[in-house]
Amino acid sequence: MEFLVRTENKLPVDTPDDIREGLRKAERERARELREAGLLKRLWRVPGRNATVGLYEAADPAELHDALVSLPMWKWMDITVEALATHPQERAR
Amino acid sequence: MEFLVRTENKLPVDTPDDIREGLRKAERERARELREAGLLKRLWRVPGRNATVGLYEAADPAELHDALVSLPMWKWMDITVEALATHPQERAR
Amino acid sequence: MEFLVRTENKLPVDTPDDIREGLRKAERERARELREAGLLKRLWRVPGRNATVGLYEAADPAELHDALVSLPMWKWMDITVEALATHPQERAR
Amino acid sequence: MEFLVRTENKLPVDTPDDIREGLRKAERERARELREAGLLKRLWRVPGRNATVGLYEAADPAELHDALVSLPMWKWMDITVEALATHPQERAR
Amino acid sequence: MEFLVRTENKLPVDTPDDIREGLRKAERERARELREAGLLKRLWRVPGRNATVGLYEAADPAELHDALVSLPMWKWMDITVEALATHPQERAR
Amino acid sequence: MEFLVRTENKLPVDTPDDIREGLRKAERERARELREAGLLKRLWRVPGRNATVGLYEAADPAELHDALVSLPMWKWMDITVEALATHPQERAR
Amino acid sequence: MEFLVRTENKLPVDTPDDIREGLRKAERERARELREAGLLKRLWRVPGRNATVGLYEAADPAELHDALVSLPMWKWMDITVEALATHPQERAR
Amino acid sequence: MEFLVRTENKLPVDTPDDIREGLRKAERERARELREAGLLKRLWRVPGRNATVGLYEAADPAELHDALVSLPMWKWMDITVEALATHPQERAR
Amino acid sequence: MEFLVRTENKLPVDTPDDIREGLRKAERERARELREAGLLKRLWRVPGRNATVGLYEAADPAELHDALVSLPMWKWMDITVEALATHPQERAR
Amino acid sequence: MEFLVRTENKLPVDTPDDIREGLRKAERERARELREAGLLKRLWRVPGRNATVGLYEAADPAELHDALVSLPMWKWMDITVEALATHPQERAR
Repeated sequence: MEFLVRTENKLPVDTPDDIREGLRKAERERARELREAGLLKRLWRVPGRNATVGLYEAADPAELHDALVSLPMWKWMDITVEALATHPQERAR
Repeated sequence: MEFLVRTENKLPVDTPDDIREGLRKAERERARELREAGLLKRLWRVPGRNATVGLYEAADPAELHDALVSLPMWKWMDITVEALATHPQERAR
Repeated sequence: MEFLVRTENKLPVDTPDDIREGLRKAERERARELREAGLLKRLWRVPGRNATVGLYEAADPAELHDALVSLPMWKWMDITVEALATHPQERAR
Repeated sequence: MEFLVRTENKLPVDTPDDIREGLRKAERERARELREAGLLKRLWRVPGRNATVGLYEAADPAELHDALVSLPMWKWMDITVEALATHPQERAR
Repeated sequence: MEFLVRTENKLPVDTPDDIREGLRKAERERARELREAGLLKRLWRVPGRNATVGLYEAADPAELHDALVSLPMWKWMDITVEALATHPQERAR
Repeated sequence: MEFLVRTENKLPVDTPDDIREGLRKAERERARELREAGLLKRLWRVPGRNATVGLYEAADPAELHDALVSLPMWKWMDITVEALATHPQERAR
Repeated sequence: MEFLVRTENKLPVDTPDDIREGLRKAERERARELREAGLLKRLWRVPGRNATVGLYEAADPAELHDALVSLPMWKWMDITVEALATHPQERAR
Repeated sequence: MEFLVRTENKLPVDTPDDIREGLRKAERERARELREAGLLKRLWRVPGRNATVGLYEAADPAELHDALVSLPMWKWMDITVEALATHPQERAR
Repeated sequence: MEFLVRTENKLPVDTPDDIREGLRKAERERARELREAGLLKRLWRVPGRNATVGLYEAADPAELHDALVSLPMWKWMDITVEALATHPQERAR
Repeated sequence: MEFLVRTENKLPVDTPDDIREGLRKAERERARELREAGLLKRLWRVPGRNATVGLYEAADPAELHDALVSLPMWKWMDITVEALATHPQERAR
């Protein structure tokens, strides 16, 4: 099933650059793994913000939760999840 | 997977009593069927309102959607759905 | 550019079935055309509601507006649009 | 009577791991006791968040309040409580 | 247990005066009965609105719900209920 | 005139226990004085929160403000006040 | 005591012009009387809307409520009231 | 001074086409006049909605109000106005 | 033109008393000057809060902005401004 | 395409004056460059706040995002972006 996932990154502004950069690099690497595992299907930026909209696919909300928690930035992120239903127009395809 | 489902019934106040009563009876009957099918697990009233909170279990949001649409009152109901993840405390049990 | 588009269908509950069905059929047909034209990329149902989340691609907000207005149900729909930025993780791919 | 209880855990991100782990362990233990006492009936995770939805049963709001305050994480939690009424469909069962 | 109950009366503006007056009279009478039964303890007007704040006491939310539904204006009222806990300062008295 | 007063106590979580306890004791003492002066008529806890709902009576909003500011916890409290009008059902009594 | 009063006039768009004009004239006349009685002190328009912000002075919320209900447009108005406290800077003057 | 003006057009869906078209034409003509008078400086569509964002310049909120009320669609429009201050970066230019 | 100005003072709770008192005194002095200059016309307290509602008159939003920024507490204040239009009832007077 | 961009500057109140002034100067310089590049077309102050409303033009949300991120104050700013569609009244001009 698919989920729309919004994240707001609240990493403190005064985080040292090397720590921030290390987190970003680890975040990109973990996102790559989630893509390869088929969990993360699309990712967009909310323009102007340190925030994203993502399209995820997971077996259930628990699997999605575990994937999101595995992101190195997770503990600084404010995340909201919306479960979506397949639309009959696409079921039929 | 489990979902928390909130409904607000917006059936117009001036609906004739026999139509309202017919809908209520059909609603109770359909709810009974959803219970027997294991989709509807618990149902509460929001005190003071023509509104409910329900705990549903369905294979995915599409199956839940079909169950909710099958309720005779559906087209008068404002419904919001929240997908819940199993808590590790309960996974472990 | 891509847009996240949310629709809530407010077609009155007492719309005669044949009119509703005619509108639905025309809606599906127009959606099919928008898919073929590359404007509508994905469509989901918000579970429990007569509402959708869609992923659109258009040259700009004006082209998107024209596409949405061309939907037969448009005048009964409450629509909100969010412009999304390509995420560098996907730019790089 | 039953209550729907939502918690958001606001424990600071920079809490040392051993303190966090100690609190989590104590939290699980206290939750187990509340289950055994019949106060905590179900618990879910809000996917993506350090947050839960719980179904509690207590004699009255004061007893519920005392149970929630007894959670070791309580002072870091933002909690909202909703009192639910038994639905006649379930009263009849 | 005590509840704070807010009501907004949505009786249509064009309701004929005799029907409105009949409803008001019946409402006052039913409120009087609820007072005598110990359910309705205090009632205030929200200044400027056709709205009230009430303090109710009932065994549980289901009993409160039945009391509110028994009000002749109920089907036109938008009601929200908040369960309150006895404060230790008053428990001790 | 009567006021409904909601308070949320934002005293920092890491306040030393003795200071917190001293403030609580002073708060209880000041509340007792406000009761005796006829300003504080009822006090409830919002279940699950460090928050209260109070019913106050004061000559006017300025007198109420002075009473609230006199609470030792005042500077940590987020307070909202709602002026209530006597309901004719109670005026008549 | 003084109150800030916001009104939104919801008179239906299709109200016949003569009825609307009659109501407006009566409204102006009643407002004039409330000014003379010292209840209505200032009145502004919210630009772009059929809405006002008013500064009223009344003995208490019940007197204010009676003044607002006496406005001929009252039953079509959505009104919110905020009780204000004299500021010490002005008390001292 | 400049104002940001948002409009939502609530003309009923079932308005006959000739009346709707007549209103639109009159609206365009009045907007043209407001442009020529220097009141309306820019106008955008909110994509997907029958709504606009406009940049107006007027001597004061009263003049702006009169301009907005002069729009033929005014009585069906929900309008919000935000007064903007010249930014020093532009004052200096 | 007139503006309704709401302020919430967010000066940290742990500000030393002498600094707080110095700021208050400077604030009162600056407010007195704004009154004398005809910019600040009325000021009220929001009961229970460290917050005010003020009625200001200024040539335009830029002049109002400069007046508000000149308040010694400005950088700790969360301020919202609403431009009001003269009501025809008062224009005529 | 054009965007309406709102910014709230959350630079901490206790930022040393020289750092604040340095940031402001760099901000003005970067804004000047964005104007010259045709990205920033208009800028207003929200009166009373450290906040702006800006009108930007960019090829797409990604280009806009990069422009906003290039502002020296960006990491302290809370920014929201709204994509606007050209209005037919202006397309025709």
